[in-house]
Amino acid sequence: MKIENLIAQIHKKKSFLCVGLDTDLDRIPTHLLGEEDPLFAFNRAIIDATQAHCVAYKPNIAFYEAYGSRGWRSLERTMDYLNSNCPEHFTIADAKRGDIGNTATRYAQAFFKEMDFDSITVAPYMGKDSVEPFLAFEDRHTILLALTSNKGAYDFQTKKVGKRELYREVLATSKDYQGAERLMYVVGATKAAYLKKVRDLVPQSFLLVPGVGAQGGSLQEVCKYGMTENVGLLVNSSRAIIYASDKEDFAEVAGQRAWDMQKEMEKEMQARA
Amino acid sequence: MKIENLIAQIHKKKSFLCVGLDTDLDRIPTHLLGEEDPLFAFNRAIIDATQAHCVAYKPNIAFYEAYGSRGWRSLERTMDYLNSNCPEHFTIADAKRGDIGNTATRYAQAFFKEMDFDSITVAPYMGKDSVEPFLAFEDRHTILLALTSNKGAYDFQTKKVGKRELYREVLATSKDYQGAERLMYVVGATKAAYLKKVRDLVPQSFLLVPGVGAQGGSLQEVCKYGMTENVGLLVNSSRAIIYASDKEDFAEVAGQRAWDMQKEMEKEMQARA
Repeated sequence: MKIENLIAQIHKKKSFLCVGLDTDLDRIPTHLLGEEDPLFAFNRAIIDATQAHCVAYKPNIAFYEAYGSRGWRSLERTMDYLNSNCPEHFTIADAKRGDIGNTATRYAQAFFKEMDFDSITVAPYMGKDSVEPFLAFEDRHTILLALTSNKGAYDFQTKKVGKRELYREVLATSKDYQGAERLMYVVGATKAAYLKKVRDLVPQSFLLVPGVGAQGGSLQEVCKYGMTENVGLLVNSSRAIIYASDKEDFAEVAGQRAWDMQKEMEKEMQARA
Repeated sequence: MKIENLIAQIHKKKSFLCVGLDTDLDRIPTHLLGEEDPLFAFNRAIIDATQAHCVAYKPNIAFYEAYGSRGWRSLERTMDYLNSNCPEHFTIADAKRGDIGNTATRYAQAFFKEMDFDSITVAPYMGKDSVEPFLAFEDRHTILLALTSNKGAYDFQTKKVGKRELYREVLATSKDYQGAERLMYVVGATKAAYLKKVRDLVPQSFLLVPGVGAQGGSLQEVCKYGMTENVGLLVNSSRAIIYASDKEDFAEVAGQRAWDMQKEMEKEMQARA
């Protein structure tokens, strides 16, 4: 997907919501467990109920991989469904892969080609030659981990490397990568105050922001420090939406929650327009 | 697998060779392409031919994932075969995963439980709460990326964080993680001279060493700086063994190459005993 199409969709829907598909057999409504493919049945219902209010979907690959090839099949079905029924939605493989050369190309092939994802999250530890193979794909986007929303982010990411913190070193260095115009970054909402420093280095890049809600981040703070004239944000919510109800009404309630978030986002967009 | 069993196997076979299963449909002998599952057919033949000379196998997950659920099925078949026929071999999922909390636990479940791998490679960027969920599994091992064999390793890993380079910060910090006794580390053979600095921090830990041969690292250098009294090394070779011949004799030639490497390793073990 071209970035212009994502931006157009955000303005049309007045939403920059990404729904995280962290679909877990231990948490989905029990009446779905009798289905042939419960993970896919759950996802399909969630997608149908939320698609009007969100611009992106982010399957968390670990939750599928945990069931081996069977889980991968559920992921493939989910992507087929998304690409057939919601071609305008931006899709993110939350895979946090990171390896070099032809290995990285194979991961890119898995997600960009086999499953037709628009983007993938990638870890920066191995440096340039672990990121550029992903950037080589036209109209696909690589979402590099910069500053994550977890406590362990303080272990290395915020440590000073020379004059600046590691996450800023990652931001600055990655701007010179071949294909850098296809880069986005993960910046956790629990670290909203850092967004100012992030924007100093990447004023226009899209940021994928996890951690609003469940992990305690504030949408207003994120928008205050992170929003650009093209919005430039994809705010993810997973559990707060998809597990809002564990009863037969789970999809309806998820749709309502997504709509609530869309309305909050609309307010933020208007306030900062 | 318990580390004592790995050490016993190393001494019995006089080998610390790990064979990397970077199995690629574009590179395997063409006569295998007619098989129902060519990736597995290739792996089975390579395993049969090399198992006497190596102590570990390391499937590179990207090469399976590139074919989606079908590729995962080949990986599962390979692991079933290894666990049934070579239970004494140490198995490494070269997956370079890295995510937090329950997501990390799901990845651990995929590799340690669904597929019964002995170990997995993990990226350290997200810190403690992205590594400890893997360490929680008894008799399974987490092989943390420290200093990788690629050029991009110089982008961040060798940059100074305070008084020491990032890879040393990773080594030092990880020693305090809960379950740290189940940690091993990736240190690239192309950076053999750094092994002395690695050993200062982790004198006894097992190191997984890629990059001997194809990437230009020297086995002697690696042993000089990295070998401990328990050997403490797993030296990986992938392409130099598995693609030594692309003809019908591929397995036989792979076995010969593995044997050649075992003999070199035996010499190093004797020289440093």
